[in-house]
Amino acid sequence: MGIVDRLRYVVGAAYVVQGDGASDANAGWEQDWRRRTRGHGLALVRPQNTQEVAEVVRLCAAAGVSIVPQGGNTGLVEGSIPDGSGTQVVLSLNRMTAVRDLDPSNLTVTVEAGCILQALHEVVERAGYLFPLSLAAKGSCTIGGNLATNAGGTQVVRYGNARNLCLGLEVVTPRGEVWQSLSGLRKDNTGYDLRDLFVGSEGTLGVITAATLQLYPQPRARLTAWAAVPSESAALELLARARRNLGAGLTGFELMGRFAVSMVCLHLPQLRVPVFRGTDPYFVLIELSDSESEPHARERLEALLGEALEDGCMNDAVIAESLAQTRELWEIRESIPLAAYKEGVMAAHDVALPISAIPRFIAETQAQLTGALPGVRVANFGHLGDGNLHYNVHAPAGRDAPEFLRRHEEQIRQIVYASAVALGGSFSAEHGIGRLKLHRMESHKAPVELEMMRSIKRALDPIGVMNPGCIVR
Amino acid sequence: MGIVDRLRYVVGAAYVVQGDGASDANAGWEQDWRRRTRGHGLALVRPQNTQEVAEVVRLCAAAGVSIVPQGGNTGLVEGSIPDGSGTQVVLSLNRMTAVRDLDPSNLTVTVEAGCILQALHEVVERAGYLFPLSLAAKGSCTIGGNLATNAGGTQVVRYGNARNLCLGLEVVTPRGEVWQSLSGLRKDNTGYDLRDLFVGSEGTLGVITAATLQLYPQPRARLTAWAAVPSESAALELLARARRNLGAGLTGFELMGRFAVSMVCLHLPQLRVPVFRGTDPYFVLIELSDSESEPHARERLEALLGEALEDGCMNDAVIAESLAQTRELWEIRESIPLAAYKEGVMAAHDVALPISAIPRFIAETQAQLTGALPGVRVANFGHLGDGNLHYNVHAPAGRDAPEFLRRHEEQIRQIVYASAVALGGSFSAEHGIGRLKLHRMESHKAPVELEMMRSIKRALDPIGVMNPGCIVR
Repeated sequence: MGIVDRLRYVVGAAYVVQGDGASDANAGWEQDWRRRTRGHGLALVRPQNTQEVAEVVRLCAAAGVSIVPQGGNTGLVEGSIPDGSGTQVVLSLNRMTAVRDLDPSNLTVTVEAGCILQALHEVVERAGYLFPLSLAAKGSCTIGGNLATNAGGTQVVRYGNARNLCLGLEVVTPRGEVWQSLSGLRKDNTGYDLRDLFVGSEGTLGVITAATLQLYPQPRARLTAWAAVPSESAALELLARARRNLGAGLTGFELMGRFAVSMVCLHLPQLRVPVFRGTDPYFVLIELSDSESEPHARERLEALLGEALEDGCMNDAVIAESLAQTRELWEIRESIPLAAYKEGVMAAHDVALPISAIPRFIAETQAQLTGALPGVRVANFGHLGDGNLHYNVHAPAGRDAPEFLRRHEEQIRQIVYASAVALGGSFSAEHGIGRLKLHRMESHKAPVELEMMRSIKRALDPIGVMNPGCIVR
Repeated sequence: MGIVDRLRYVVGAAYVVQGDGASDANAGWEQDWRRRTRGHGLALVRPQNTQEVAEVVRLCAAAGVSIVPQGGNTGLVEGSIPDGSGTQVVLSLNRMTAVRDLDPSNLTVTVEAGCILQALHEVVERAGYLFPLSLAAKGSCTIGGNLATNAGGTQVVRYGNARNLCLGLEVVTPRGEVWQSLSGLRKDNTGYDLRDLFVGSEGTLGVITAATLQLYPQPRARLTAWAAVPSESAALELLARARRNLGAGLTGFELMGRFAVSMVCLHLPQLRVPVFRGTDPYFVLIELSDSESEPHARERLEALLGEALEDGCMNDAVIAESLAQTRELWEIRESIPLAAYKEGVMAAHDVALPISAIPRFIAETQAQLTGALPGVRVANFGHLGDGNLHYNVHAPAGRDAPEFLRRHEEQIRQIVYASAVALGGSFSAEHGIGRLKLHRMESHKAPVELEMMRSIKRALDPIGVMNPGCIVR
């Protein structure tokens, strides 16, 4: 019996798919989210529980067939699609969606890997709690994928990345054993932190099948303000002031450069951008979560903005008056990638910097780019509170963008990444490595660090069954 | 030239100590903090910088001599003293105390491993910031030790353990290479999380020589309340209410059982315990940190306590009226170990539980203990907000405590640990494993987990030079 027949025997014939998946509702299991690369897999396998996952892994390991775990397949670095060889099995977790347990007095929820982030939000919100991880793909991405990639998003300034929200894991190891560690403990100093090692390992060390996650009480009020600021330094000044005045109430602080916002105005005119003057170089979104009341939140936010206006670190601002207006403001921010896509192809980057280095990064990178490629246009936006910029470089106006990118993309990327790394930054803040950025690891990581990663990979997955070609060679 | 002479050559003869260290100000480098075990080392070596640490590690690795890193030597599980063989080198970081950098707009500080926690507090507080890690040993423990053991303490309910406060590390690997990763980034998804692997690894994977840590703005006010509560369930109710009403303002929530507090009254009569009636079974300390003002903090805390009184989850409470009174209240909590020591020897435990399981743990463990050993007295206290109890069992009143403990200590420990683990808990919440609890790993951890830990140890330290006998065999 061949491997595919054995897999059918384990999970049921209906749950082993062969051939192009493009007829599915989404783009298919072989296609990456950005539609730049299509892989070719041996089969898509959809087990229904942890034991089936373990059997699939054991079968594949015994047959020398490698496995690519897949959640919502919304990753941006081609870590959840098969390579082009036609020999890899894609292991989808999308039948494992159960919320196994919600423990209000421990403030935890235990959920299976295939549960979609937004579905989890709905379950915990109905119970009166908050699971703060939030990102644009929340309607499609899964908890397993969020953890495997250590997802970031818009609430990191207060709640941290996916790793910080995870207390316990259930994992199928590369040998097909089940490691059950869904503990729900805040403190557990009993040996090496395997949990944080699996989180962010992009399916290369095992398959996350379930997790215990931290919940928070829902804040009594959430308020959002939109502000125009005169410079990136002023934005940092406003951030520091917001941290001092709002403390942990500051749950979002997003930066948007003028060009990024102007693309939204141009390509998505149905969105109303408040206080947008062509002379304001930057805009910020500030979110305050308050455990007292709406009037209290408004008073605090107004006081902050009043001080900032007086200080000159802000030009103008508006506080959302309703939930609908709040949603509109966030929609402007979240629509920047779509507007940029409508503007044309670009070189997108996801860099992180020490927050203090951001003004220098912006100035130096811009100077190098326009020195090398006069006229390029930079759409600069991101999660300023975490030092995370989505720094996207568009072709000069009027140029054939695909042609320009074909010729200059690698040069642009090298300038941006080298500039970030030189200032103590990262060439992948929240998107991860996958296959797409694997070659950047060698350029930007010290040999001692790469060698530690390789030796951990060899130690936990000696025959290389789990997602080979991601993170480490 | 023998290894000790080579070490003298590297760090200077004055910084290589041989023989009993008990003439030092502290108990000496071979003596554990609790004075239960004295090791016997080949030499104490005190390098002055990271390069010297690397040379020491290379020399020892080449000579097949194992290394025990030592910070403030305040650990409670015998992980920072040599074994009895007389062959191990103790590597003290206590000459590496520099605060290398404080970056206010990134809210980070970069500090060497030997810096004492309290000294770091003073530096960052002078600059107007807060480094929230706080534990009773803060006047002696070092940042390197805090990270190597993933220290917990009293602020975990809001800020997490040492791991959550660490953004970057500088580490000397078991091969004597320097891994420089003092990044100060909030987001950096470029490969496996080596940082969190070194944090909590108790010196078994390398030597932490410096770290970049997260700072917070200082709150504008901190208020502490002392409350008497009618049961452990009522304490949980009050905790849930405090989380809802105070949000992230809740920075401390400590539980103390009546017997624990009564030992303070008895043995440390100079401490004034407020609202202490012999009928109240539990007391809690609540700390609120407020980013607005003292009057605002007081209003919120009074409202919380008023509601709790009405609900019946609290019997009585007092809010500290001054900084001095705040210190007094915390001193009662922090003096429990000293009072217990004066009461006589005991079996101390450091367990963690899902918070929801705490009432059941307390009831079941008490029943089992008094069933097996009638009359034993339990001093139950700890960080309720993190589910961390310091559950200490004293001999029955009037019995010869040392004799009782000699006969029954192992039985007591087995009851307590089995009870915690059966309810999804941990047998070491914040103290770690060291040599003292190594044998508990085999009793309470799944083989699949132990094998992953062993394979990581072999991968990163193949010849076993770093702190052998801790965490893994």
